Amino acid sequence: MKEFELIKNFFTEQVVKRKDVLLGIGDDCAVVSIAENQDVVVTTDTLVAGVHFPLGTSPKAIGHKAVAVNLSDIAAMGAKPSWISLAITLPEVNDDWLTDFCAGAFELCEYYNVQLIGGDTTQGPLSITITAQGLTPEGKYLSRSGAKSGDWLYVTGELGDAALALRHLKEPLLTEDALIEQVQRKLDFPKPRVLAGQALREYASAAIDISDGLLADLGHICQASSVGANVVLDAVPLSETMTKSQLFDDAINYALNGGDDYELLFTVSEDNKVGMETALSHAGVKITCIGQMNASQTISTTLNNKPVPIKGLGFQHFSTK
Amino acid sequence: MKEFELIKNFFTEQVVKRKDVLLGIGDDCAVVSIAENQDVVVTTDTLVAGVHFPLGTSPKAIGHKAVAVNLSDIAAMGAKPSWISLAITLPEVNDDWLTDFCAGAFELCEYYNVQLIGGDTTQGPLSITITAQGLTPEGKYLSRSGAKSGDWLYVTGELGDAALALRHLKEPLLTEDALIEQVQRKLDFPKPRVLAGQALREYASAAIDISDGLLADLGHICQASSVGANVVLDAVPLSETMTKSQLFDDAINYALNGGDDYELLFTVSEDNKVGMETALSHAGVKITCIGQMNASQTISTTLNNKPVPIKGLGFQHFSTK
Repeated sequence: MKEFELIKNFFTEQVVKRKDVLLGIGDDCAVVSIAENQDVVVTTDTLVAGVHFPLGTSPKAIGHKAVAVNLSDIAAMGAKPSWISLAITLPEVNDDWLTDFCAGAFELCEYYNVQLIGGDTTQGPLSITITAQGLTPEGKYLSRSGAKSGDWLYVTGELGDAALALRHLKEPLLTEDALIEQVQRKLDFPKPRVLAGQALREYASAAIDISDGLLADLGHICQASSVGANVVLDAVPLSETMTKSQLFDDAINYALNGGDDYELLFTVSEDNKVGMETALSHAGVKITCIGQMNASQTISTTLNNKPVPIKGLGFQHFSTK
Repeated sequence: MKEFELIKNFFTEQVVKRKDVLLGIGDDCAVVSIAENQDVVVTTDTLVAGVHFPLGTSPKAIGHKAVAVNLSDIAAMGAKPSWISLAITLPEVNDDWLTDFCAGAFELCEYYNVQLIGGDTTQGPLSITITAQGLTPEGKYLSRSGAKSGDWLYVTGELGDAALALRHLKEPLLTEDALIEQVQRKLDFPKPRVLAGQALREYASAAIDISDGLLADLGHICQASSVGANVVLDAVPLSETMTKSQLFDDAINYALNGGDDYELLFTVSEDNKVGMETALSHAGVKITCIGQMNASQTISTTLNNKPVPIKGLGFQHFSTK
């Protein structure tokens, strides 16, 4: 097991050195100091090979994604990511693999000034668990539970491409290399909406990141907030790759049920709409209003201003995981 | 994968509800508030089935041990544990297994007022990663790096029983059921020295918990502190089970190299010796002085006041992992 001790070396050479990390990697615990009037947000996500990423996924993509899915949760709270702990289980020590994995993980950490403060390296079937932490002004955070009837429903970015990539891996659907590469990139290198999340902190009434699929994650907001929602299917943002290569029914199915998008889904009151749109214009991410919350306790969808049953139009609730 | 969502239910019914947890399980992140003048300590440990615990280990023991090894790291910093995040990967959902696992994990959490604030449940080969956090007064924590030449070397509890249990599982050595049960309990249900760790915060110059074995973990203190140490083998605390069932050479070998003890190994200056012994007398744990730090940069051992080469006497550096 000695070599599993040695791979710690891969994780000690970091560019990010935060002042609030009093003790980093190498002791029994890390020690961090918390500025006054700040709360700490904490999230943990595990990626298991063959479950959360296809077996052939590049180590760089695995490293990126393991960090990204956690930062995405921090973003959904409107918090600023600060530190991660990394537990990595590997079947064997492979220097090239680890170098690429670290490149993928640390690139994102550097971009957001996030420091790796500890973790564990063990032998076993490939799996990565990251615990990420972030900071937010005292008592100020977004949750799933603040949506009100009448609030507008927004989403960042475009939906469904990651699910399309995953489907293509199982059953080739796309023929153009450029398109394949574009959707594959969405699956492998999701962008956590960290700046958008922080910009939303003052404006959104509820937020979640889309990991399970638009409808499932909207369901989480509805349940936590005791409201319902109507989604305007015509408004759901789809990529050019998606609209060029897929029929609308298939495209909307990927967008509604696919998951792995890591876009933010959030609600905003009428009063905060303009303020939010102004604030988000600086976050470098497209946002789209895709519906409105209501008092119905259920989720409905409309197309061309007409109600469409969710189970109609052949939409399948397929699982990508 | 729906059932893996459902098992979250196992983790939501907790007795511990801390005031500093503003948002617990069920959102994208947990949110915790940090009292003024407190630093946060963070540790992560993974247990992989068949690597960190034998495949036949009871789910209750796995739950206990997964929490215990993390709280042991918090104890080694002199901090007070506060919250854990649990990432559990399971091959299948088994209600009985999960009930027992939770019983083992939560019993320890309740005892130390530690709240589970989040985590992830995934499908795959059995593995548990816990990130534990604790609190310590600003700037006050124990590390591996403060030992000075002349400091006394202490250890809590008794060493080697867990290693003996592990060896017995591979190759039956013990015949009496009562003895087998005693060492098995030390392997399966290690006691993190949480109160002792906090009591040591004002007195110890360095501390570590013994997970790799006395010599290996003493090596970590020596390296981090740039000192050496002499260990008086006659003084190393062994259990009655160990001394009754094993020859001294074998017993001391388990104690020096076995690991999995989760006792605290710490150093104390001459000036702090009496204060430390008084403070520790309230922590309900036996402590033993087993040697002294020196300027040699190496670890030596003595027996009957005579130097004994570590590689002499047939001591093997065996790996239990």
